[in-house]
Amino acid sequence: MTYDLRPIGRVESTLTDTALAPRQADEGAPEAWLVFEPDVGEGLRDLVPGTDVILLTWLDRADRDVLLVHPRGDTTRPETGVFNTRSPHRPNPIGLHRVRLVAREQNRLLVSNLEAVDQTPILDIKPVLGEVSER
Amino acid sequence: MTYDLRPIGRVESTLTDTALAPRQADEGAPEAWLVFEPDVGEGLRDLVPGTDVILLTWLDRADRDVLLVHPRGDTTRPETGVFNTRSPHRPNPIGLHRVRLVAREQNRLLVSNLEAVDQTPILDIKPVLGEVSER
Repeated sequence: MTYDLRPIGRVESTLTDTALAPRQADEGAPEAWLVFEPDVGEGLRDLVPGTDVILLTWLDRADRDVLLVHPRGDTTRPETGVFNTRSPHRPNPIGLHRVRLVAREQNRLLVSNLEAVDQTPILDIKPVLGEVSER
Repeated sequence: MTYDLRPIGRVESTLTDTALAPRQADEGAPEAWLVFEPDVGEGLRDLVPGTDVILLTWLDRADRDVLLVHPRGDTTRPETGVFNTRSPHRPNPIGLHRVRLVAREQNRLLVSNLEAVDQTPILDIKPVLGEVSER
């Protein structure tokens, strides 16, 4: 049994090489544009600059057969289960990113600190819960 | 262009009715078992009880055509974009849950406070990192 993901948009970023991309957002990731398909535009209503959101992406260049990895690719460290790491290489390579909305132009959102590379498919946006548990 | 998700396991829970399931984990969600496929078992290495993890699920009973929703289903509140909510009904219905690992039995993990219903497909497990940990 499999399920079918339909990307709702793409990342536009100056990062183009996965080997050079930061491993985590707080390690020097740049601003990037999230460019949404016109037919999901209504779903962006009330997303306003200045707030943080959770962005889910599909890391389409990942190797899906990986189950054991060296943490952070450091072969001097013992292998661990991939579900104990944030490696992009995993059976369902879904990227999870907390980003700040910086600006909006219709169906395009500018976000800070995104370590995903250019043209990465976007799957979903969710509000951060915790401070605001209401939604 | 679409991508195919292959579930790595299923939720076993006493929650069976999506209409009765809590909207958020902190609203009375029960413990549940995560039962993994034998062929991904190696990926669970080093996941130990007592830690929190991010669980991604596929909310397979969701309506994927929804773009506008009343927050928390309350029709007295104005509609907002689905990406501004945690509604399960959305184009790619990926559930994002922060859960605590309570116990482990080989390829089964017992977790606390999971609002997903019985037989929900499991997509991924990730460690909590800094502030990306928000549910």
